[in-house]
Amino acid sequence: MRLKTLFLLLTVSSFQFLFAQDFEKDSIFIRQIYDESLVNGESYENLRYLCKAIGHRLSGSEEAEEAVLWGKKVLDKMGLDRVELQAIEVPFWERGDVEKAYIQDIVPVELEISALGGSIGTNGVMGTRVIEVSSLDQLDSIGKDKIEGHFVFYNRPMDPRNISTFKSYGGCVDQRYWGAVKAAEFGAVGVFVRSMTLLENDEHPHTGSMAYKDGVTKIPAVALSTRSANLLHRYLQDQETINLQLELDCKMNPDKSSFNVIGEIKGSAYPDEIMVVGGHLDSWDIGEGAHDDGAGIVHSMEVLRILKALNYQPLHTVRVVLFMNEENGNMGGKSYARIAKRKNENHVLALESDRGGFVPRGFSVAGSEEQLELMRSVDELLKPYDLHFFEKGFGGVDISPLHDSANLVNPQLMMMGLVPDSQRYFDHHHSGTDVFENVNKRELELGCAAMTAAIYLMDNRLLKGN
Amino acid sequence: MRLKTLFLLLTVSSFQFLFAQDFEKDSIFIRQIYDESLVNGESYENLRYLCKAIGHRLSGSEEAEEAVLWGKKVLDKMGLDRVELQAIEVPFWERGDVEKAYIQDIVPVELEISALGGSIGTNGVMGTRVIEVSSLDQLDSIGKDKIEGHFVFYNRPMDPRNISTFKSYGGCVDQRYWGAVKAAEFGAVGVFVRSMTLLENDEHPHTGSMAYKDGVTKIPAVALSTRSANLLHRYLQDQETINLQLELDCKMNPDKSSFNVIGEIKGSAYPDEIMVVGGHLDSWDIGEGAHDDGAGIVHSMEVLRILKALNYQPLHTVRVVLFMNEENGNMGGKSYARIAKRKNENHVLALESDRGGFVPRGFSVAGSEEQLELMRSVDELLKPYDLHFFEKGFGGVDISPLHDSANLVNPQLMMMGLVPDSQRYFDHHHSGTDVFENVNKRELELGCAAMTAAIYLMDNRLLKGN
Repeated sequence: MRLKTLFLLLTVSSFQFLFAQDFEKDSIFIRQIYDESLVNGESYENLRYLCKAIGHRLSGSEEAEEAVLWGKKVLDKMGLDRVELQAIEVPFWERGDVEKAYIQDIVPVELEISALGGSIGTNGVMGTRVIEVSSLDQLDSIGKDKIEGHFVFYNRPMDPRNISTFKSYGGCVDQRYWGAVKAAEFGAVGVFVRSMTLLENDEHPHTGSMAYKDGVTKIPAVALSTRSANLLHRYLQDQETINLQLELDCKMNPDKSSFNVIGEIKGSAYPDEIMVVGGHLDSWDIGEGAHDDGAGIVHSMEVLRILKALNYQPLHTVRVVLFMNEENGNMGGKSYARIAKRKNENHVLALESDRGGFVPRGFSVAGSEEQLELMRSVDELLKPYDLHFFEKGFGGVDISPLHDSANLVNPQLMMMGLVPDSQRYFDHHHSGTDVFENVNKRELELGCAAMTAAIYLMDNRLLKGN
Repeated sequence: MRLKTLFLLLTVSSFQFLFAQDFEKDSIFIRQIYDESLVNGESYENLRYLCKAIGHRLSGSEEAEEAVLWGKKVLDKMGLDRVELQAIEVPFWERGDVEKAYIQDIVPVELEISALGGSIGTNGVMGTRVIEVSSLDQLDSIGKDKIEGHFVFYNRPMDPRNISTFKSYGGCVDQRYWGAVKAAEFGAVGVFVRSMTLLENDEHPHTGSMAYKDGVTKIPAVALSTRSANLLHRYLQDQETINLQLELDCKMNPDKSSFNVIGEIKGSAYPDEIMVVGGHLDSWDIGEGAHDDGAGIVHSMEVLRILKALNYQPLHTVRVVLFMNEENGNMGGKSYARIAKRKNENHVLALESDRGGFVPRGFSVAGSEEQLELMRSVDELLKPYDLHFFEKGFGGVDISPLHDSANLVNPQLMMMGLVPDSQRYFDHHHSGTDVFENVNKRELELGCAAMTAAIYLMDNRLLKGN
């Protein structure tokens, strides 16, 4: 055997030896993470408080401010190196007291509605004919003559065939977001949008954000429960002309002050390199924001609690951010990124949880092929925990401004999102059933552990000092 | 280039070409299977009927017989090649009207109980001291002197640390199954068993099967809700002596006649080679047997419906069996296997669904390394549907007698089980909450499609004529 060959063989085996050692050490630590979450976890009781004692918490509301103080209090108790409230400005929309819609039949037939977030009110009762369409484009072929002065009813359902329900949501949500703008351009006076849910006959309307556009008349917009959407559709099949009545007194108020809540453990080796985990503290103003995004909040807080409980001293600084105002403005995410840029903070990783508290499947990586491969290189360590999904994909709304060219400090910043199973997400999303009782304790705790394991693994594998 | 090399190259590329063609064909067909289940699926409405119109259906009950007739009716409508009722004998246990337990305090404190399936009654009210243990073995160290004449309370909880909740169940269920025999051997007069659930403070007792043993006195046995188990545990920490009262009038009746329900599509190429899919039609007598095993029943029926709907003519005979009496005797599974042996029926594959209607993760294969590899060889086709778990493991109780040496016709018989996510299974298992409302439509339909895809793929890949 030549010396060079011998040397090569020795090198390879030491590598393999070191790799095997690392694998075993990591494997043991990840097991401890899961044990801590499943045996001593605090995520479920934290979520109970957030949902049951505070409740829903739209930006600007009293509940949102309570949630800020609660978030700070929970982080304060963890013995972190730093806890901070980061002041921001948020929009403040209020639903008001009246929210009614009827089909004008011999006796009025009530429709289950929820004003879309940001909608203007009706200023009294509006009544006119309704025209059903299944897409924004369909308005072009119908034409202004027939639409002007009427309501538009967008009724394209979410496609049940996609395995990822987020894909079906993405294929439908243009109706909710742009529906009012497009209808107003054709002279419509208000819009009804079929709820973004895969439940085919659901009594709960699902609200959500919508846009207005400068120069286009603002018109009221509401979500219809799928049950009411089906009913209205049947009416429109039977009779050519159907009139609806609508009354809303929701309104947009002046902006208010609010906060992102920040806590961190300083890194021992790279204190200036930040790994951020987060979700959003605000929610829509119906239900309890349990999956969206109470789960992401308690997931993220639990990452730091578990690392502390296991006496893990991270190499990089691990920071949790409870972002405010994801639902209607993303002022928390935008402000956080702007301030980070101003301070020249070097973020190396941003991990968001905003897809519910369901059993985790894996992670999406919004970044380079190398970053995806880095995550995939640890899949054998995560496979025993039923994590199998490591694909390119969106990180999350709150963290995304960190990667905007205006804010980007470190081009190597790795963006990730927790990917829980998506099947039940849109059953509850933005509706009255997004409540604590619909979150399963073990599924939630497995999410916390998965997030913590990802942070631990990346803390040890990200290029040092980049 | 030598001719031989050219030939070799051509062969390899034709192979690759054929493989790619197969992959594409299979990929398209599997997509059709999923579309059929998610868009036109009948599993959810079938389950609704089974749960809501019939309800729970313990072997020997009127509801079990209704379920048999319903199962036959649904299969009859499918236009299969053969539908048959297979006569069997089943045990017939009845819970009776009285089921009460109290802690004897200043005022009696009621405990939430459910007699274990097969338990004898108390023949009036029994009252005596209770002794808490956390394992069967602990009785050995306590000794007969202290146990004789008393109740034993088995209180070891399911371990929350396992990712598969079935593993935690397996680590606990000895208390429920063997607890009465062991306690009776030490002279105890009755047993209380902590419910087999991971819910830590659940009001619902979870029943299940238990054993008696020839030569050992039969004593009454009940499940305690975990909430009541916790309460009793706290009492026993405060006071050394706690007396309980128990009254049950459950009883075992003579065996009754019942049926397995069988339907099949004849194979075009190998009609004498049978691929069987099944679940069990019976359930415990509380709740509605929605996950256990209504889901498995509608999963299995849907396999044949989907294949028919897509005009797929299987090479092998595809047979669905709705087994009776899995819960307390497995007489359906045993009888089916015995009759199959007598007829010398050649089963090439048996696939069971009896782990709930939750989102599917993959399949367990109880068989050879080659059979596991065969399933793994199609993982790229199933990965787009979030199926990732292909491991050695149990097939199912109903199909297992097919593989008993006494019944085995074909040593190559491949045994498989659908593996849904297990996190929520023991929240509902054998309790009052195993009802239709706790089954999610999409999760159920994805299970149907996964089962159908597995049958389709194996129909095309199992060695022909083995």
